[in-house]
Formats: sequence, structure tokens, C-alpha cells
Amino acid sequence: MYIIGLGLGDERDITVRGLEAVKKCDKVYIEAYTSLLSFGISSNGLSTLEEFYGRPIILADREMVEERADDILLEARESSVAFLVVGDPFGATTHTDLVVRAKKLGLEVNVIHNASVMNAVGVCGLQLYRYGETVSLTFFTDTWRPDSFYEKIQQNRFLGLHTLCLLDIRVKEPTLESLCRRKKQYEAPRYMTILVAIEQLLEVQQRLGGSGTK
Amino acid sequence: MYIIGLGLGDERDITVRGLEAVKKCDKVYIEAYTSLLSFGISSNGLSTLEEFYGRPIILADREMVEERADDILLEARESSVAFLVVGDPFGATTHTDLVVRAKKLGLEVNVIHNASVMNAVGVCGLQLYRYGETVSLTFFTDTWRPDSFYEKIQQNRFLGLHTLCLLDIRVKEPTLESLCRRKKQYEAPRYMTILVAIEQLLEVQQRLGGSGTK
Repeated sequence: MYIIGLGLGDERDITVRGLEAVKKCDKVYIEAYTSLLSFGISSNGLSTLEEFYGRPIILADREMVEERADDILLEARESSVAFLVVGDPFGATTHTDLVVRAKKLGLEVNVIHNASVMNAVGVCGLQLYRYGETVSLTFFTDTWRPDSFYEKIQQNRFLGLHTLCLLDIRVKEPTLESLCRRKKQYEAPRYMTILVAIEQLLEVQQRLGGSGTK
Repeated sequence: MYIIGLGLGDERDITVRGLEAVKKCDKVYIEAYTSLLSFGISSNGLSTLEEFYGRPIILADREMVEERADDILLEARESSVAFLVVGDPFGATTHTDLVVRAKKLGLEVNVIHNASVMNAVGVCGLQLYRYGETVSLTFFTDTWRPDSFYEKIQQNRFLGLHTLCLLDIRVKEPTLESLCRRKKQYEAPRYMTILVAIEQLLEVQQRLGGSGTK
């Protein structure tokens, strides 16, 4: 089984090693819920990949990754399977769970690394050595407005460190209503903009009484 | 001008985009002082790259990068130049200075990212989000035994964060004696082992009175 990072750009950002693996695998999945192809968020991006690789690709959405990962692993016992991940396999999120489960099944797991935002952010000119803990900003809801990310940014600032803020994406999230029913319905996809991130930061700062100016 | 990350393995870890750029550039340099090809540390690794790319590669050692970078930049005004970096261009160290100087000269700079230890360390199973400041451990000398890295590791531990420790390499370092003479002589190359790193950590812990057990 291969877990292959695709990097951050388009189809040509896969490594030569990764491309060779994709071409020789029997089945190719792409993980599409913790991150998204930055080119062609829709199936167009997928077709571009399929054309470049010369292979059909199966979209593994949240449900498939969370609930049917074992099926993929069982397939990987009988045949060679490539599991594509935008960025680095362990970058934007941990696919550690999948690897641990694969190893328990006695599968050989080959990880092919690539760039992720965790290291490519160095391009902005700030030293990667001087980043503190990374934070995730999730969309506020009417009833859920967590502020733990704010304290972490404060902590990093206090130590003279930069903070990488990852902004929420919500794709194929079941609506609250639909969770009570038999048939799932999904919210429209949403991607947090920098503006929304800043608004949420300012809201928390105000709530905490402006102590963020320290 | 292209600044191209080579990733962490061998010649097949370059991205397809990077390989295309190398093939079309007039001149190809490899930066060989902040990091080293992990396969074939000597010129063998270089030949493997040259064979795979079908291009001759010029080794840019510390002197060339620090003292003659402008020459490379001037070349890049007249022709297309690829500057290869092990890992990611901004990963193991900042090549920010080169980019800034290139931009001042009005050069177009294309950065092609790749995996670096800064993100590939996720493969060990620890969440990348939970890493604090990265530290560098440099070889102790008789007269220079700095301990600032120790406090940073302590700080990270206090915050419940992991620490990535980068271990020193000393390649093509002029000997102290030779610095006083006309002709430079170099120390034998040295690479810090994990054992040496731990010994240095323990020495600092003892020096600081065992406060590291906190």
C-alpha cells in the first residue's frame, strides 16, 4: 500500500517516485475531506489528475475514510493500492490511524512525502524554526464559539514565535436536521476566508477584554 | 530562476514540475552546505542526479553560496538557472536571502516546493500541529558549549509540545589554523550522531543543576 503526498499545486507537483507508484498500483484513491486540490476543487481537478496519471481515481470522501477505511485496507491485502493525499501524508492532518491499522493487518506501507503547508509556509520569508504551535480556526456557530486558538497565538507571541493558522473547510457536512432522519443531506461547502478568520480573532479579543494587546 | 526542492530521498523524489524545470534550464547548481543528499553524500550522489536529469550539475558549496551568490544571480539574468536544494527550499534553512537579492535584481523567481524534515517528521506519528520551536544542536567545542537549545526544549515540554532537534553537520569548515594563513585547509567532515546529541543534552542538564526534570 502506498500513501502518496500530492504537494500543493497541480498534477505536476507529485514526485517522480509518487507518479511511478500511482502508475503501477491496481487501484488509486484520493483522500478528499481533510484537504482539497487547490486547483479545480470539483471533479475537474480529479479528471486532470486522471489524465496525467493515465489512471482512474476513486474519491474517498469523509464517510469513506472514517467509516469504510477497513474496506480499502482489505483490498490492499489482495492488490496494490495507492492512497493520494493533498500536501504531505502527515502534513495537513495525521493519516497515522490508517497506517497503524494497515500495519496491524500486516500490510507493507510505503509513505511518499511531499510539500505541505506546514513547511511550504517558509516561502513567506519567516523562518520555519521560529513557528510555535499551529492552530486551527473553525467556523463559529450560534452556539459554539471556542477561543482556545486565541490563547495559543498569544502564547506563541509571548515566546516570540510565529503562528500558522489553518482555516476551516466544511465540505460534505451533514445538516443538523438530516442527522435526525434516514437520508443524509449536506450543507453547501464553505471555505473560511482570511477576513472571517480575522473577524473571529477580533471577536475573541473583545470577549477576553482586550488582553490580547499584551 | 528556479529554486527547486529535491525532497529527502534520492533522485526520484524531485517533483515532476521540478524535473521539467531542471531539464529546461541552461545551468544547474546544487546547494551543498546547509544540507546533504542523504543518498551518496559524496560525488556519487551527484552523478546519480546528473544521470537521471541528463544534465551536468555544479556543486555550490558554502563559499560559493556565501561569497559568490551574486555571480549566480548575474548569470540568471542572461540565462535560465536552476538552484537545487535538498528538502524544501525554505525548509532546512532559509534561502530567503538569495530570493530577496534575486528580486532586487528584477529576476523572476520560481520556487518549487518539496518535502523537508520540517513536515516529513510527521511520519513518526507525532502531530505536526503540536511541535513547538525547532532547535539546532551544534557540536560543542572546548571553548564553546552553548545551552540555549536546552531551555527551548524545556519550554516546549512545559507547553506539552514536541521538539524537532536538528543535528549539526560540519562540512568544508576551514580549520582555525588555516584561517590565519593564505591557503585554506578544511576540517574532516563531521555529522552529529543521536548519541552525541544526547550526551550534549545530558551535559547541559547536569550543568544547569538538573532543573530539566521539571
